This record gives sequence, structure tokens and C-alpha cells, in this order.
Amino acid sequence: MSWMRDLFPINRSLSGDGNRNTLNYLRKLIPDMVIESFPCGNKVFDWTIPDEWNVVDAYIELADGTKIAEFKKNNLHLVGYSEPVNRVMEKSELIQHLHFLDDIPDAIPYVTSYYAREWGFCLTRAQFDSLGNGPFHVVIDSKFKTGEQGGLLNYGELYVPGFSTQEIMFSTYICHPSMANNELSGPVIATALAKHLAGVEHHYSYRFLFLPETIGSIAYLNENLQSLKSKLIAGWVLTCLGDRGNFSYIPSRLGNNYADKISLSVLDKLVPRYQKYTWLDRGSDERQYCSPGVDLPVCSITRSKYGTYKEYHTSADNLDFVSGASLFESYSLFVSIISAIESQRVPKISVLCEPQLGKRGLYPNLSVSGAYPIKVQNMVNVISYLDGAHTIDEISESCGIDRAEVVRLIQILHDRDLIMV
Amino acid sequence: MSWMRDLFPINRSLSGDGNRNTLNYLRKLIPDMVIESFPCGNKVFDWTIPDEWNVVDAYIELADGTKIAEFKKNNLHLVGYSEPVNRVMEKSELIQHLHFLDDIPDAIPYVTSYYAREWGFCLTRAQFDSLGNGPFHVVIDSKFKTGEQGGLLNYGELYVPGFSTQEIMFSTYICHPSMANNELSGPVIATALAKHLAGVEHHYSYRFLFLPETIGSIAYLNENLQSLKSKLIAGWVLTCLGDRGNFSYIPSRLGNNYADKISLSVLDKLVPRYQKYTWLDRGSDERQYCSPGVDLPVCSITRSKYGTYKEYHTSADNLDFVSGASLFESYSLFVSIISAIESQRVPKISVLCEPQLGKRGLYPNLSVSGAYPIKVQNMVNVISYLDGAHTIDEISESCGIDRAEVVRLIQILHDRDLIMV
Amino acid sequence: MSWMRDLFPINRSLSGDGNRNTLNYLRKLIPDMVIESFPCGNKVFDWTIPDEWNVVDAYIELADGTKIAEFKKNNLHLVGYSEPVNRVMEKSELIQHLHFLDDIPDAIPYVTSYYAREWGFCLTRAQFDSLGNGPFHVVIDSKFKTGEQGGLLNYGELYVPGFSTQEIMFSTYICHPSMANNELSGPVIATALAKHLAGVEHHYSYRFLFLPETIGSIAYLNENLQSLKSKLIAGWVLTCLGDRGNFSYIPSRLGNNYADKISLSVLDKLVPRYQKYTWLDRGSDERQYCSPGVDLPVCSITRSKYGTYKEYHTSADNLDFVSGASLFESYSLFVSIISAIESQRVPKISVLCEPQLGKRGLYPNLSVSGAYPIKVQNMVNVISYLDGAHTIDEISESCGIDRAEVVRLIQILHDRDLIMV
Repeated sequence: MSWMRDLFPINRSLSGDGNRNTLNYLRKLIPDMVIESFPCGNKVFDWTIPDEWNVVDAYIELADGTKIAEFKKNNLHLVGYSEPVNRVMEKSELIQHLHFLDDIPDAIPYVTSYYAREWGFCLTRAQFDSLGNGPFHVVIDSKFKTGEQGGLLNYGELYVPGFSTQEIMFSTYICHPSMANNELSGPVIATALAKHLAGVEHHYSYRFLFLPETIGSIAYLNENLQSLKSKLIAGWVLTCLGDRGNFSYIPSRLGNNYADKISLSVLDKLVPRYQKYTWLDRGSDERQYCSPGVDLPVCSITRSKYGTYKEYHTSADNLDFVSGASLFESYSLFVSIISAIESQRVPKISVLCEPQLGKRGLYPNLSVSGAYPIKVQNMVNVISYLDGAHTIDEISESCGIDRAEVVRLIQILHDRDLIMV
Repeated sequence: MSWMRDLFPINRSLSGDGNRNTLNYLRKLIPDMVIESFPCGNKVFDWTIPDEWNVVDAYIELADGTKIAEFKKNNLHLVGYSEPVNRVMEKSELIQHLHFLDDIPDAIPYVTSYYAREWGFCLTRAQFDSLGNGPFHVVIDSKFKTGEQGGLLNYGELYVPGFSTQEIMFSTYICHPSMANNELSGPVIATALAKHLAGVEHHYSYRFLFLPETIGSIAYLNENLQSLKSKLIAGWVLTCLGDRGNFSYIPSRLGNNYADKISLSVLDKLVPRYQKYTWLDRGSDERQYCSPGVDLPVCSITRSKYGTYKEYHTSADNLDFVSGASLFESYSLFVSIISAIESQRVPKISVLCEPQLGKRGLYPNLSVSGAYPIKVQNMVNVISYLDGAHTIDEISESCGIDRAEVVRLIQILHDRDLIMV
Repeated sequence: MSWMRDLFPINRSLSGDGNRNTLNYLRKLIPDMVIESFPCGNKVFDWTIPDEWNVVDAYIELADGTKIAEFKKNNLHLVGYSEPVNRVMEKSELIQHLHFLDDIPDAIPYVTSYYAREWGFCLTRAQFDSLGNGPFHVVIDSKFKTGEQGGLLNYGELYVPGFSTQEIMFSTYICHPSMANNELSGPVIATALAKHLAGVEHHYSYRFLFLPETIGSIAYLNENLQSLKSKLIAGWVLTCLGDRGNFSYIPSRLGNNYADKISLSVLDKLVPRYQKYTWLDRGSDERQYCSPGVDLPVCSITRSKYGTYKEYHTSADNLDFVSGASLFESYSLFVSIISAIESQRVPKISVLCEPQLGKRGLYPNLSVSGAYPIKVQNMVNVISYLDGAHTIDEISESCGIDRAEVVRLIQILHDRDLIMV
């Protein structure tokens, strides 16, 4: 919650200083994270990265000199990617650029226009009703920077190497201004998971991505798809993880990848009641990760899913809407997911034929009885299943040996460089 | 029927002027057809293309000067690929070269000897009985042309491009002299289907082949097997489609390719009663298309199958044996097959990740609400299944959208070059 | 039994003159066998081939001049790979190097120390009890030869080519000194099978390996793994096949390869009662052949499995422990296995499209009736299933033709070079 409180006021968008400030803050918590960028204007698959956007100030000055919809008071007042305006205008013109909500009159809606030059303000219903008749002095002191001018789209990437080069991905997004559940819960839980991994032994490698949604994941995939295809075994989009609602599961497009399976098995085991959505209910970066031809093994677990609660994409999605207890519970669920993956890993022996255990002190040099001496029977049996296709649980069952003993024997082999990593 | 009447008198065989005349006639109906050739003498897989064969005249002159078994009256009188003869001979020699039928006394049988030099005449039983005792003047004014002398085996090929390079094949044969059901029904129905396709939108490409049976398909496969392997998704051998019998289905060798499936599903739906044969009952060019290692997705639908009716391979398989109604019904069945294939096509999006719909006017530029605006939800859902593995029916079911709406949305994407062809 | 009697007295081990003498004896029976070798000291996967070991003499001389544990009387008295000793010592030192059995007091145990330099003697319990107090003159006149000094590990290999390059392997071991069931039964049965194959037509090729156990198969795999992977369709480790016990089946690691299937189907059909072991009960060269990444289709059939009978690895595993009747029954079982494999072979036509039968005298040149003349119908039907995926039994069933007739027709095609080998 304290990280969230610090990050809440920052104006995030697809790009700009707010995004860099957010990433810099996270880097203090997870120092191995690197802040990377793509130049604005780059073609990424079917898309073009839009120009970098920064805002100094924005407000509407009423006839009596009162300022309303001030960006400095709440960055949601300004439509994302608004172009600069500094002009007095009639009410008839202004209201075409105003957004408010009828159903939640005291909330400011969240509106953006990334790919078509527009401007606009978002207000509460009360603010809209009290506008008066104008004229209005509209001020938007914003600036666009093209790639040639140094404009960048930034993202954070943390790679936590394990024994294996096979990897697990957690992807979340950093493009939402002052809203809490959607989306600061994803970044803070990703950060907490990264800190957790620093303290535990883990076989797999882990990749954390803090990207602007849609264009960020598309730009990332544009550069890294082949690498992810060859190494990623499971991934999750982290979003909407701080509210007090039940957990929800949004499957991948085909619904049966390894991330789907782990998600369902952990949810079934740990969560008494959760909501199962379909692929048609998706809406975050699984849209890209699971698109045809990309087809990475990614799905999503949220609490209340984006779009299903009335505070969604409004100023009512604030720090009160989330709770430390909910965040901790979400964090714990993903820790369990990590444990489940780690415990189901499939180790592989690094030599062909049986290894010569005798020269490593693991086999009696004097052969006096049956095919295998009793004391090494378990070891050779475990070795015979280290084919990269049997999980530790399956080896335990196949050999009739306790799981803990299997792990102990594999550790011995690992210490002697007999386990492929 | 009028095409059939025009083509009926022409003397067709594996090669020769009759084949070229037949192809020239068809080319007037489907002008994009090209007339191709293989030189005689060429090795094609295990076979050698025999020399080109042409006939000026042939008959048997009786002792009293009467001519019988005149080629000019019915080209079936001459054994196909008969070598030249011009000689007076005794009855004992002649009758070794005569063929007639006991069970259909007024019919002339159809006999050929393509690969061993022979000569012979075919007559009705009555003609045979009235031969007298001779001597006989036997005249066969035929000529063989080797490849070096310019001898050719001709075939017609029509490629009708669709959006996709994946293709459907209809193969029929042009090597039978004056017989109607077997085989002019195949060529005229292939021609009608080609004309039909010219008038309708179609996703797939279509290939029509008019070949001499066996050696023609072998020679064609010898040059085009790899290309067909990579592009052909279904094919049919068209033969025996004009008689008044019920439909028959002859499966491919393994019985479960896409052509088999479409055939059965269309027949089950449209035809109250049809005969299912087995692979062991085959007998036309599916023999080559389905041979081990060739294994193209080809099967056959006929009316009365070759070899099952008594008029088969005799002069009784004439224009009375077929009917315009039967031909039209057969044509309609294949039109339904084409529709079924077209409706089950599996379109594929042409970009990785989601396409940027906004820049194409398909997505609101202003983002004001949920993950996807309601009005584009169907579009993005359909896109997410355009993976080249889901049929339009499956997409319709997966997305819960009417089939017609799915087609409409795909057409919109196609118009914007977002569908792979 | 007579081969066994001849071979019984020879001192075999991982290497040395005894192994070469054994192989030379076998080569007289199966002259096409070649005697191959690997240099001592070579790295083979995770192992190093130990030095060659030869023994001139070895015994313990008691205080009264009596010699006991004489190598020349029974080569089991000397621990395998004992280093040279020629020294008088006290009883306290000697007894650390003595091995005897409490449970079979009149038997000499079989002990080796291949990979750590040791020395020792094995005696009966009675001999041990009658040692007296010493001192003892211990004589071991043994010699080690490194690879540089010409030391070799020898093995025998017999390749019996069939029509096909696909192969069946029988692997057995020649590293046990004077014991009968384990292991002279394997080598004599392998030899008998090789002689059997010389007299019968067979489609597949056969490979017989006579190797020292473990290091021999590892060294062989180190050189031949890729070749075996591409050609081996089934293999058996031959061991413990001479005793009077029931048959036993030891599965491969995954338990479902072609050798497993054939083993179970033949055992189920021919053997009223046999013991099914699991992979965990394994103990011979299937350990290497089935190790992860090697995964050759190998399993094992024994009579009483090694390690399960009290005479195992002692001098009680002698010529009385085995019987000619048992050996013959084991031999017959493997002859049945060979027949089963041969009868389930999957022949393949060597040309694409149908072969031109006419030019080979297999098809009438004159075409006078149906699609296929009746007399060649069976031939063309059989040809259509020669796709390398249908067994002869399946072809027989698919075509509705007697198995014997299918074989006859394939033989005709084979004689005309139309069957792929």
C-alpha cells in the first residue's frame, strides 16, 4: 500500500516523464530492473508507436476567473494525449470536449485519445452542471515529442536468472494515471514477486515486464517474440489485483496452455470461490500475447475484472477502493503459483547412458551382490527418469520414493554437475 | 447435353487429334483453360508415355466388297492404339483380332492395347455372325508418332485463382472415344463447374484437369506432385456422372481426407440414398492420386460406378444412356460441395498481435469505457480466432455471433488487407 | 549345452585374454562375427574404459604350504580386476580382503572391483573357517595394460543383413567368469539365433552384440547411438536364459516400445505363466539402452531374473544349474519373437503412382473390361496398401485376401524390384 500511495499521484500514460518516474521508483525497490525504450514513430507489427506526451498544466477558466478541471488537482481531468490549447471559446464549442458520468455523478471518468489528435476534459457531473455560460479560457499546456526529437516509449524489464533458461513471465502495465486497482495493483504485486524471488532458490528464470498496455506489449513482442517462443513456459498478465472482490480467471485464447493449467490447479486448491471468464471477456495484454501466431502460454488472474465494477476507469478507483489485505492475498496466490511451477519442474540428466557414480563417491567400488546395491537403488532409479519429461512428483510416484528424498537425490546430482540447467 | 452431343463423335484416346479437338472445343467454353502437353517417350515415374496415335480410316472388307466394322461409322470398331494393317487374310487369322459381346449382342465393346503393339476390331454379335468365310481385306490406316517426331500427349488445365493459394482440384479424363457416361459426363460437368466459379466470389483457388486417364494423371503428378502436396486441400475425380442411377461414393485409400469428409457430409445432407463403395472398388485416377507416397486428398463421387452397369465400356453407353436432368443434378451436387468447402474455410489474420483498427476507421479513437468498446467487441473477437485453424462455423460458435455477421466482419478485414490469402 | 561346457572354464572379465578366447570360440560357430575393440582409457560418455586385466595365477599359501583359493581351480576365487600382490601378511590384514557367504556356505561368491584398485579372494565358508592363523603368502600374478600399452576392451558384433536396413538387436554380455546361467546362457542363445537366421529368409537386418556389461554397451552406444536411433526397431538384452525357472519380462523404461509390445504379445500367446517385472527391477544393459536421451526400443526377457535366485553371482550358478531343455525353450521363444516381427513387417512400394504392371507381364496388355481385370485385382489392391504403414496382416484384412496370397504377391513384386528395402 505504501508503494501504491507513493505512485498514485504520478501522471502516467503511454509515454512521458510520469512513466519514467514510475519506473525509477520501482527500480529503487528492485535494483536489477533495467529501464528500456523504443523510439516514438517506430513501426511495430501493424502499429506505430505514438509520440511522447508530457503535460505542464491544464484547466478551464470560467468567466469569473475560477479554474475547474485542473490537471494539477487530478490528472484524470485531462483527456490522455490531449493536444495543446490556449484559447477562449464559447460553451457550444467547449462541451463537445467534455466527458462526465451520469451513473456516478461524483466521479471523474478516464478518457484517452492516443492515436487521433484530440483534446478534452473530464469532470464530475456536479462540475459540469456548474459551468455557467462562459466564455471559457481553455488551457492545455502539453507537448508532443517525435522519435527524431528524442521521444521515447519506456518500459521496465527485470530478468531473474534461475538454473534453467526456461522462463516464467509476469507482465503488467504502467500507463494508467491516478487510479489504484487498475492499474497500480499489477505493478506493485509484480515488484513484490520479484523481491520474493530474490530470496528463494528457483529452477526457472523469471521475467517481469512493466509496459504501457497494448502498444508496449506489441512493441516488446515485435523485438522478442522468437526468444519468448523458445523459452517461455508460462506467463501472467497482472492487473486489477487490489480490490476486495473475489478472484477471477481469464483463460488464454485456446484455454489449455501451461499457465492455464497451473492457474486452475492453484485456484481450485486455494480459492474457495472464483469467477471463470472466457477468452471473449479478455481485455488486457493477453490480447497480444495470445493473438494468432503469437500464441504464448499466457493467461490472467485478477480480482474484480476490469470493466465489471462501476469504479472502473474513473477517479473512484482510488486508494480507498483497494486494500492491503487484498493485495497481500493476491501476492500470496502468485507465490503459490510460483511454488507450483517450481515443484512441477522436469529435471534432466546431463549425460547420455548412466553416469559413472563410482568415480563421484556415489556407488560402492566393490561389486558383491545384485544388479544394483540396495543403497544406490533409489539414486539410479531417479536418474533413469531424469529425461526432462517427468515432473518430480511423477518421478516420486514412478520410483516409489518420497518426494523430499527425490529432491535430495537430485540436489546431490546437481552438486556434481549431472543436472542439465 | 448439347456439349456432349458435339463431343460425342470425336475419336479420343491417350493422344492424337481427337484429344486436341476435344480440348479446343472446351477451351471455347472456358477460354482461360490452357492446352498443355508432354512429349511421347518421356519417363514418368514407373511409366513411359506411349507414342501419339492417329487414325485416318479402318474397316474390314468382306469377300463381296461390303465394308464392316467401319471406324468412320463408329470409332469403337477399332481397338484403341491399333497398329497399321493393309492386307488380305484368312478367317482363321482375322478372328484372333475380333472382339464382341455375348451378353449384349447389339453393342460394340470398347477395347484398347496401349502398351503392346496389337491391332483388332470390335463388332456386334450380329456382325460377327455375318462375316462369311473370307478372305478379308483388313485396312487400318493408323500412324504412330514418337516424341522425336513431335508426338505429344495433350491435356487441358484451368486454374481459377481465388483469394487463397490453397486449392481444390477437379480431375476428369478425355481418353474415351464415343461413349457418353464414361466418359463425357466428367468433362462437361467440370466445364460447367468452371463456368459457375467464374460468376461467384470464392476464397480458394480451383484447378481443373482434363487428362487421359492413368498415364495422364501419372505424367501430371510426375511434374506437379510437390506443388499439389503443398496446396491441395481437396480433390475429386469426375466420372460417370450422366446416367440415371443413384449417386455413389468411392473413398480415398485411407478414407478420411478432407475430400472424403466433405463428400460424405454433403451426400448425407442432400442425397436420400447413395451407394458407399470401398477403396477396393476404385478404378479411375484416384488410383494415382491416392497411391502410397502420393496420398493427395482426393476421392470420387459418381452416379452408377464404372464397371457396375452392363452398358459400361460398350457402344450402349451412348447419348440415350445419359440425361440432361441427371447431368444437372450431378452438377448441382458439386456446386453444393464447392459451397460447403467455401463455407468451411479457415481464414487467417495477416499480422501478428492485434491489428490497429483505429487507423482503419474500425475502432473509436477516443477510449472512454471498458476494455473493448461494445461496438468493436465482435470484430476483435472474430480477429482473435483468425488463426487458420478455426472454420467460420467454429468462429461463429466460439464468439456467439451469427455466421453471416462473421462473414461480414471478415469481408471488412479482407477489404483492408488484413486477411491472409 | 556343449558350447556352454566349452566356454565355462574361461576367465572372462571386462577385458583380457579370456574375453578374446570366448569371442574366438563363438566366431567358429558364427564365422561372420567380427571381433572389435575400444582402446583402454577412452572416454565414453560419462565413463572411462578401464585398463585391460590379465591373470597368470593367484592363490593364498597357508603356513603349512597348502594353497587355497586357487584361481586355477576356480577363477571366481579371485576378485575381478585384483591388482598384483606377492607378499606374506598377517591374518588381520588378509581377512579384510576375503569374501564368503553365510547363507550358501559351500559356494564361492563373485566379486569385482573394476574402477578402484583393490585386491581380494572369494572362498567358501568352510575354506574361510579352515584358514588357520597364518602368516599367509598371498600371490596375485595379474597385470594391467593401459591403452598406450595396447590394452583393449573387446567385443563381438555380427550383422546379418536382410532386405531392409531396419534392424533388430540382440545384446548379451561376455564379462562373467565361470558362471553358467549368468552369463553364458545369453551368449549361447544369441549364437543359436544367429545360426537360425542364416537359414531363413528375413526381411529385417539383425545385429548381435557380445559385450562386457555396462562399460561395453556404453562404449558401443558412444560410437553407434545415432545409427541405432535411425535403424533399430526392437532389441533385447539376452541374460539368465538357462535355468529351470519361469520366464520373466523386464520392460523398457517407458514400457511401450515395439520390443515391449512384441514381447508381451508373444509371451501372452506362448507362455502360460510368466513374471512381469517393472523398470525398477532392471539391472542389465537395458539400463544403458533405455537411459534418458538414449531411449532405444529395447527390453529384456529372462527366465529367473538376475538377483532373484540364491545361486546368483556365486559358484553355485554352475552347469548343473542350467539345462539343455531350458536353453532350448528360451531359444524357441526368441525364434517366435523373430517370426512375430517378420510377420508384422510393413513393406513399401518403391515407385510413386501405380507401377506399370503391363511391362512386367503382370497386367494384360489388352484392356477389354472393367476398371481392373479380375486377375490383377488382388495385385493392385495389395500394391495400394504398400505404404510402409500397413502390416501384412492389415493388408490381408483390408484387401480380403489370404495372408499367404498377400505374401506371394509381395514376393512377386519384390522379385521385380518394386519393394523398397
